[in-house]
Amino acid sequence: MKVGFIGLGQMGTGIATNLIKAGHEVTVYNRTRAKAEALAAIGAKVGATVAEACKADAVFTMLADDQPVEAIVFDKGGVIESLPANAVHVSLSTISAALSKRLAHAHSEAGQGYVAAPVFGRPDAAAAAKLFVVAAGKREAIETVSPLLDAIGQKTFVVSDDAHAANIVKLSGNFLIASVIESLGEAMALVGKAGIDKHAYLEILTSTLFGAPVYKTYGNMIAGGTFTPAGFAAPLGLKDIRLALAAGEDLRVPLPLASLLRDRFLTLLANGGDELDWSAVGGLAAKDAGTN
Amino acid sequence: MKVGFIGLGQMGTGIATNLIKAGHEVTVYNRTRAKAEALAAIGAKVGATVAEACKADAVFTMLADDQPVEAIVFDKGGVIESLPANAVHVSLSTISAALSKRLAHAHSEAGQGYVAAPVFGRPDAAAAAKLFVVAAGKREAIETVSPLLDAIGQKTFVVSDDAHAANIVKLSGNFLIASVIESLGEAMALVGKAGIDKHAYLEILTSTLFGAPVYKTYGNMIAGGTFTPAGFAAPLGLKDIRLALAAGEDLRVPLPLASLLRDRFLTLLANGGDELDWSAVGGLAAKDAGTN
Amino acid sequence: MKVGFIGLGQMGTGIATNLIKAGHEVTVYNRTRAKAEALAAIGAKVGATVAEACKADAVFTMLADDQPVEAIVFDKGGVIESLPANAVHVSLSTISAALSKRLAHAHSEAGQGYVAAPVFGRPDAAAAAKLFVVAAGKREAIETVSPLLDAIGQKTFVVSDDAHAANIVKLSGNFLIASVIESLGEAMALVGKAGIDKHAYLEILTSTLFGAPVYKTYGNMIAGGTFTPAGFAAPLGLKDIRLALAAGEDLRVPLPLASLLRDRFLTLLANGGDELDWSAVGGLAAKDAGTN
Amino acid sequence: MKVGFIGLGQMGTGIATNLIKAGHEVTVYNRTRAKAEALAAIGAKVGATVAEACKADAVFTMLADDQPVEAIVFDKGGVIESLPANAVHVSLSTISAALSKRLAHAHSEAGQGYVAAPVFGRPDAAAAAKLFVVAAGKREAIETVSPLLDAIGQKTFVVSDDAHAANIVKLSGNFLIASVIESLGEAMALVGKAGIDKHAYLEILTSTLFGAPVYKTYGNMIAGGTFTPAGFAAPLGLKDIRLALAAGEDLRVPLPLASLLRDRFLTLLANGGDELDWSAVGGLAAKDAGTN
Repeated sequence: MKVGFIGLGQMGTGIATNLIKAGHEVTVYNRTRAKAEALAAIGAKVGATVAEACKADAVFTMLADDQPVEAIVFDKGGVIESLPANAVHVSLSTISAALSKRLAHAHSEAGQGYVAAPVFGRPDAAAAAKLFVVAAGKREAIETVSPLLDAIGQKTFVVSDDAHAANIVKLSGNFLIASVIESLGEAMALVGKAGIDKHAYLEILTSTLFGAPVYKTYGNMIAGGTFTPAGFAAPLGLKDIRLALAAGEDLRVPLPLASLLRDRFLTLLANGGDELDWSAVGGLAAKDAGTN
Repeated sequence: MKVGFIGLGQMGTGIATNLIKAGHEVTVYNRTRAKAEALAAIGAKVGATVAEACKADAVFTMLADDQPVEAIVFDKGGVIESLPANAVHVSLSTISAALSKRLAHAHSEAGQGYVAAPVFGRPDAAAAAKLFVVAAGKREAIETVSPLLDAIGQKTFVVSDDAHAANIVKLSGNFLIASVIESLGEAMALVGKAGIDKHAYLEILTSTLFGAPVYKTYGNMIAGGTFTPAGFAAPLGLKDIRLALAAGEDLRVPLPLASLLRDRFLTLLANGGDELDWSAVGGLAAKDAGTN
Repeated sequence: MKVGFIGLGQMGTGIATNLIKAGHEVTVYNRTRAKAEALAAIGAKVGATVAEACKADAVFTMLADDQPVEAIVFDKGGVIESLPANAVHVSLSTISAALSKRLAHAHSEAGQGYVAAPVFGRPDAAAAAKLFVVAAGKREAIETVSPLLDAIGQKTFVVSDDAHAANIVKLSGNFLIASVIESLGEAMALVGKAGIDKHAYLEILTSTLFGAPVYKTYGNMIAGGTFTPAGFAAPLGLKDIRLALAAGEDLRVPLPLASLLRDRFLTLLANGGDELDWSAVGGLAAKDAGTN
Repeated sequence: MKVGFIGLGQMGTGIATNLIKAGHEVTVYNRTRAKAEALAAIGAKVGATVAEACKADAVFTMLADDQPVEAIVFDKGGVIESLPANAVHVSLSTISAALSKRLAHAHSEAGQGYVAAPVFGRPDAAAAAKLFVVAAGKREAIETVSPLLDAIGQKTFVVSDDAHAANIVKLSGNFLIASVIESLGEAMALVGKAGIDKHAYLEILTSTLFGAPVYKTYGNMIAGGTFTPAGFAAPLGLKDIRLALAAGEDLRVPLPLASLLRDRFLTLLANGGDELDWSAVGGLAAKDAGTN
């Protein structure tokens, strides 16, 4: 298939690479052109504009936030204007449910397909084609792009005909991870102040009821108080919790634990946490307890 | 060894059985004598009083709450009065850190040993000798009883010389489970109101980042809204969160997520939840969202 | 002075009337023209378009939310296009700090003045020219319009050169009122379930420490459970708390009590509260307590 | 009347003085005898023991917390043993509802009367006989002591036949004050970080909607960040919120704002706040916002 790919950050580069390796004809576009050219070596065509990347059966976008996605899609020369009829826009970014809904509508008006396909996994999983893909959208659009999704992840979950449902699943997943961080942060503040070794405590947790990797990864960071380098930076954590709360507000679903997390992220960022991993939220309980 | 065992509920019966099977000479005592006599068939001696169960190298107590433990230990004819010098009281119950500290002190004054050894695991794990035991206390006391702890669980974690540290670990563990329940409850309220199938959603979670059994077990109960029969009843959940908060207050550790959980349990119990499993707390977010 | 007035809801009608009474030459504009014509009887000129209302030394806007303000100001034929240089836009609406900042910038670019002047007071206070006006903006702009502000309120507080500061003060004020509602709701849930008469309780509060009218007004509504008719509807309460939280997020100020209020409003609206007064939030604690 | 008075702290000394001035024959008792002797100058008889103070028609207790009240009442030679039949114990202290209930029961068993009569007001109000008294208990007991209550306060509110109801009213009142502190703390953190002068802001609040003295007093402390000397120390604030939550738990009334306050107090005390006024809780939001 002819594929466009817009957005070559850490995640996007790994994913685009896997699309190329799978034999697709990929035109990549990135605002900073150097990143695009790096992929030419393995066979990518470098697009000079968004429009060039859109001359394709499907175009992927993998960007940091609502704003760049909005610009790339709706601006003059953007995806809406440039994508052929019946071609599909696959949005991998973790964006708001509201924007995803708006994209679905705009693409439909333009006779184009739209699939929201946010992913779970860090850059190493992206590079190894081990992502979990949560996809939603009209059936035909999903069928069109499913070989592409298979090329970038270990499994695709199709959750709904409504594209934005995939974004809600993704946001809720990040909320669940942040909840693990907060709960571990409080538990460790308590046992730590009681004189128990935090790493030994974590060992008990992870060898009994809490074996999931998320407990090991974040538990170690919290036990050690090591929140750099940021695998996933705190401002992105705040963004995702804000988007989860916004989805909740649109649907009128109160989410008190998400509210608590939002306040934690704000406290972290107000006190110099911009460069820290989002797990640094798990250090705030100990700080409130006067032990950090 | 000569062992006494006081408290033959679902958990206690399984544990006492395993001590008998391991070849120890076990005298059991229960307020309702019938439960004690049931164990006579497999070799238990039935004690008529607490004092008789205390004629031993070690006596276990496995009771529901602080109050019965306090009574059995401090009342006339209780454990403090009856246990021989150098014999060890092993407290398996999920009690407050404050009471555990008081027990440590009283036994020490009486020349007796004391080990706090709360366990993780449900009745089936107790019956199968698959419990995880978290133990704390003076080294000699722990050494004395470690063969007994080996007989009842799959692994013993020794966390501190201070007995009550084991209780804090246990309480924090239950707090972590309740946090999972709350976070799943909120996430499912959100995705459910967005029209996503809750069981399909849970399948995504548990086959990706949240593989731990606690997510499967409680996630299924919340997705299905099936909170009976109670494996662990809501009032016990409230008790454990209250004790975690009390430990936090003694140590001056604020625990905002535990505070949220406490309010959730109170809401549940104020609205007819006494007989429900504690995972019913995970149904409250959907109720607040008007969807349940 | 020549004055334009856009937005003739309950508040706007009272305010525009007072400007007319004070002898100013007022051109009124309202989307639903009938409301504008009602003011012709007392001497208003009825504008057919926003642009006509803007042929003035100052134009007031009094609208429900960010969206209509944005449209009226930035749309073709809107305030930015139509207001003469050096004339002043006085924004009375309770809008977001972010939009107010954007308005300040746009008017400055267009050579126009801008004053944010949100008001405290209900429709009866607006009609009686008893509003409290919180104003912010460039000094000259404020000086220009201060006789107009004197005509509509009992007192004007100038808080900053930065216009949006006035909006933050207004939003924080509504947050404080909502906090009173929540605290009274919880206190009454407690004393009510303890068998104490809620009205007698309120009498104690208001005749001792809590004499402010806000306690009397909302306390009576909560004690009686009478939340209709809505003096200030619950969806507007949610809006204001959301805008306070958004201002906090922009400035990185966590506001946990505002977060709690946001969840309360969502719960209320998810359970049929759209038509209720925002004080109905004060009935939720009793509902959680199973007594309502 | 013959009156005993136990507990001569700042509050107790003022109250006892007013009973003496009103012409009653007062025997005072205090653990530290010097404070009792200071009152001999104005006509008090100094009791050497609790029992001596109890040779009276009514005995008042005014102590800091549950523990000393429990000791003075139930210990050997205490109030229960020493008070004549039909004499009345008036408990002015801010104690738990649970202890008050227990006192009511014990005095009833002993043929004595019991009135819970906690007071609102600071030491200066106590000295000036300007307290507000909230009283509950059996009608005859209240009638017996009502001239005494009139002598110490400006008004007595009788709220229930159940003595502990008065304690719940008192605790809920302190909860309401703490809620004012928290809400002002958050509002000032927000406006302060927006560059608005906090004292000017407070002036707006108190001259418009929030004229109650509680807003002025605590608002000034928060605006100025001056939390010493402690008029009411932070540990007492924590105690009262804890007792309000405990009353809520007994009655199954969730109180999320009280939970938030509890966590705030713990944070304050864990970070060196023991000697500060409880209004220092109102400085935590600014600290979380990185501005303090």
